[in-house]
Amino acid sequence: MEPPTVTYEGRLARARSRMGDLGIDALCLSVGPDLPYLIGYEATALDRLTMLVVPRDSEPVLVVPRLEAARVPDRPALFSVRPWDEIEDPIELVSNQARGASVVAIGDHTWARFVLALQGALPRARFVSASLVTAPLRVIKDEAEIAALSDAAHAVDAIASAIRERPFRGRSEREIHRELVELILDHGHERANFAIVASGPNAASPHHEPGERRVEEEDVVLCDFGGTMNAYCSDITRMFVVGQARSEVADAYEALAIAQEAAVRRATVGTPCEEVDRVARAALDDAGLGQYFIHRTGHGIGMEAHEDPYLVAGNETLLAPGHAFSVEPGVYLPDRFGLRLEDIVVASESGPRRLNIASRDLTEVD
Amino acid sequence: MEPPTVTYEGRLARARSRMGDLGIDALCLSVGPDLPYLIGYEATALDRLTMLVVPRDSEPVLVVPRLEAARVPDRPALFSVRPWDEIEDPIELVSNQARGASVVAIGDHTWARFVLALQGALPRARFVSASLVTAPLRVIKDEAEIAALSDAAHAVDAIASAIRERPFRGRSEREIHRELVELILDHGHERANFAIVASGPNAASPHHEPGERRVEEEDVVLCDFGGTMNAYCSDITRMFVVGQARSEVADAYEALAIAQEAAVRRATVGTPCEEVDRVARAALDDAGLGQYFIHRTGHGIGMEAHEDPYLVAGNETLLAPGHAFSVEPGVYLPDRFGLRLEDIVVASESGPRRLNIASRDLTEVD
Repeated sequence: MEPPTVTYEGRLARARSRMGDLGIDALCLSVGPDLPYLIGYEATALDRLTMLVVPRDSEPVLVVPRLEAARVPDRPALFSVRPWDEIEDPIELVSNQARGASVVAIGDHTWARFVLALQGALPRARFVSASLVTAPLRVIKDEAEIAALSDAAHAVDAIASAIRERPFRGRSEREIHRELVELILDHGHERANFAIVASGPNAASPHHEPGERRVEEEDVVLCDFGGTMNAYCSDITRMFVVGQARSEVADAYEALAIAQEAAVRRATVGTPCEEVDRVARAALDDAGLGQYFIHRTGHGIGMEAHEDPYLVAGNETLLAPGHAFSVEPGVYLPDRFGLRLEDIVVASESGPRRLNIASRDLTEVD
Repeated sequence: MEPPTVTYEGRLARARSRMGDLGIDALCLSVGPDLPYLIGYEATALDRLTMLVVPRDSEPVLVVPRLEAARVPDRPALFSVRPWDEIEDPIELVSNQARGASVVAIGDHTWARFVLALQGALPRARFVSASLVTAPLRVIKDEAEIAALSDAAHAVDAIASAIRERPFRGRSEREIHRELVELILDHGHERANFAIVASGPNAASPHHEPGERRVEEEDVVLCDFGGTMNAYCSDITRMFVVGQARSEVADAYEALAIAQEAAVRRATVGTPCEEVDRVARAALDDAGLGQYFIHRTGHGIGMEAHEDPYLVAGNETLLAPGHAFSVEPGVYLPDRFGLRLEDIVVASESGPRRLNIASRDLTEVD
């Protein structure tokens, strides 16, 4: 689950220090990446509540269904465990731990039903988003985290290379999707998070759901896939063309590759996030394709597939060493075709570092 | 996505009627099963918000990221679509649709960050759980839904039969887990939800995470797996033994099978949910195993893997025709072995109907 050099103690101490700065009395974390980031255990997304309560000044307690308690790592110096039985009320257990808190920070992915129940049980508390505490910690990746992101990136690089040799023509999007999911697992991920396969005109929808359409001659096929490996995410997009690319496609792809390269180069320490987005957009504008670039340029990545920092207009955050994010401009021509090119990049004092090394050519496949 | 006879219009009308009864002014649904139940579209669990707003007296509006809008089915008689661009604020769009609402019902799985943001944008509204509106509708399965659950059950039955013929000895839990995931997809599910493989002493942890342990002679292996097929869930647990079962295991399994059979037979229309749980527990108590049965007897199942009704002490709900649920007593002997036997059952006027038909024997495998 965790890279070897993680010190959960240090992360918890920093989280508590931020709680102090922000006047937060209790941090309550359930499903999502904050919990494994802080204690190395991920809550199961189920109707049975798992929640870590971190009071500002006393011992953290993990409230967990008894039938999952055996999965919890034994880290008594870090937190104690309070298993709950089927006839107990976990909301009561959690609210007892947070009793007297004026401000409660609650994990961003916590289910609404548990948020509402806790608000009911702690009527005098003000609830705020846990990411106020955790996002500034998680956004700066340390060396071990960058190594984990890099390992995951190399795994999907290998897949992107391997599928160049596989046939596309005549296979359905769903078949190729299945193959990608299996390759993601075969290459060491503990889970596959997504595998978009969008062929021909379907690629004009950026988040197309792979379906029964079979790949035809001259189709451009967009493959955007990733998973979670040792708790850190991979995410890559590469384009494949069956036979020879039509000239309008080849021209648009060349413009896209130039835009992506320009955006990656602009992602230096001290650059505002929105500036990287602006550079990609300007390059596509120059090629007359700006109107077809309908999403942000990128998202942060770490234990979560999408997290801070976002490369989007309006985000004035300055890039800092250890920021990790996708750079993925795209162009989507309704009813015709769609293209996207995506790498994971880490900002560092020595310049932007691409973690993905798979060929960025518009690959001709069979 | 939807069974053929679904009338979303009817479901929406019933939801609105309940909103009227409960004094709820707006229903806001995001990720989770309520949204596909009502309009046949499932929100992607991402940082970009998708949310359907159903005001009590005006047209429902689906607020959706523009890059996902192409996936939304075109059902103009049911709802209109408001795609949002990357530089727009979806919380503002949603709260504008719900403006003036005194009571807002919010989908149970909605991420906390969106709940808090909406509460901030609608400071005078009281927020309640959407399941007040939707759970009583969803808990009674109609004929098409029972057919979908039955199809999904038969798919996992076929897998349970197929893996009897496969070797277990020497393979790791993770390898068998991978095989189950692939079989779940091969047998027509659109996704695999879980595939617990717990061998030997590991099965004493009911929600064991499959790991590197290799199956040995005399091991009992617990396989609990399911997926989503045509939007409805499957869920089955079967036990396999390598070679001959030790007598303590065989005896415990026989007691478990008797307890499960008794509980299934007790699941008649008009019986309180807790009574089914009590019957299973009493049968295991009689066999001296009651202390090792550490979880509830079952959970409802439908578009969600776990939903109402729960077969647990304290739940006085009377079983009604169309209730669908698991019956899955288990015994867990720390450091020794664990056993569970699970079928999906539908309550009907003609008695409890088991949807799973795979052999319930403790199967000897190689």
